[in-house]
Amino acid sequence: MTNTHRPHQTSFRWADTPVLEYKQAGAAPFKDVTRQVLFESAELGCQLRYFEVEPGGHTTLEKHAHVHAVMVIRGNGRCLVGDAVFDIALHDLVTVPPHTWHQFRASEHAPLGFLCMVNRERDRPVLPDEETLAQLRKNSAVAAFIRV
Amino acid sequence: MTNTHRPHQTSFRWADTPVLEYKQAGAAPFKDVTRQVLFESAELGCQLRYFEVEPGGHTTLEKHAHVHAVMVIRGNGRCLVGDAVFDIALHDLVTVPPHTWHQFRASEHAPLGFLCMVNRERDRPVLPDEETLAQLRKNSAVAAFIRV
Repeated sequence: MTNTHRPHQTSFRWADTPVLEYKQAGAAPFKDVTRQVLFESAELGCQLRYFEVEPGGHTTLEKHAHVHAVMVIRGNGRCLVGDAVFDIALHDLVTVPPHTWHQFRASEHAPLGFLCMVNRERDRPVLPDEETLAQLRKNSAVAAFIRV
Repeated sequence: MTNTHRPHQTSFRWADTPVLEYKQAGAAPFKDVTRQVLFESAELGCQLRYFEVEPGGHTTLEKHAHVHAVMVIRGNGRCLVGDAVFDIALHDLVTVPPHTWHQFRASEHAPLGFLCMVNRERDRPVLPDEETLAQLRKNSAVAAFIRV
């Protein structure tokens, strides 16, 4: 049973809300990312997670059938969605459509913290194979951005 | 089709995201509240809305079977959930369980802006009748807080 009120503590930590590994170490390439599940229940049908990418860090380059609905709530950075790389800043909204390659990176000097809403029932991410990476790298902006 | 990137504009407004009436005027008691639907799709199974309550304003005192998952992202205020009235501030999390009376109020001098995640399929709110109000007002903190 979730407490009705979970006050924000310092630096994007909340009572009764553990800081988790982003993914199991070695399961996929990523750097300096944490995960907190803010809301999760069968009634809601979805989850709201908070991810924080430390300065210089990045999430996994991946795709999947499920949709991501993202709002930046700390710092800034850049992201790849499909073949577009763009700057993201406080309170920006990002939609990751189904089956779309995506990756989030913090800037070198500030963390990037974002909310990510997802369906509770969702498929597992797919990682790019060498052929996919070669294809993605034909776009020079994408080639310069991605970390694998 | 939602744009992939909707940058935050000034003061909690977003491109391609209209500012809506909180509820139809006269449908329920409320004061100075706006609504923006940030994310909504069948794939997600849920919606993420942004509500903003102007200084001195309040949402409707109501209950329903569906759950609210709330994060404050602007200003501060107070809320009632069940028989508890508490202060809420930036980035606090609030869970409104099923069938639980609730109301949000901004402070007199600052707006209260919060995200609210809900299931896409949900029941309509119920308003309190006179007997319910009398019952709620037996708690003096609740009596002092509610606006109807």
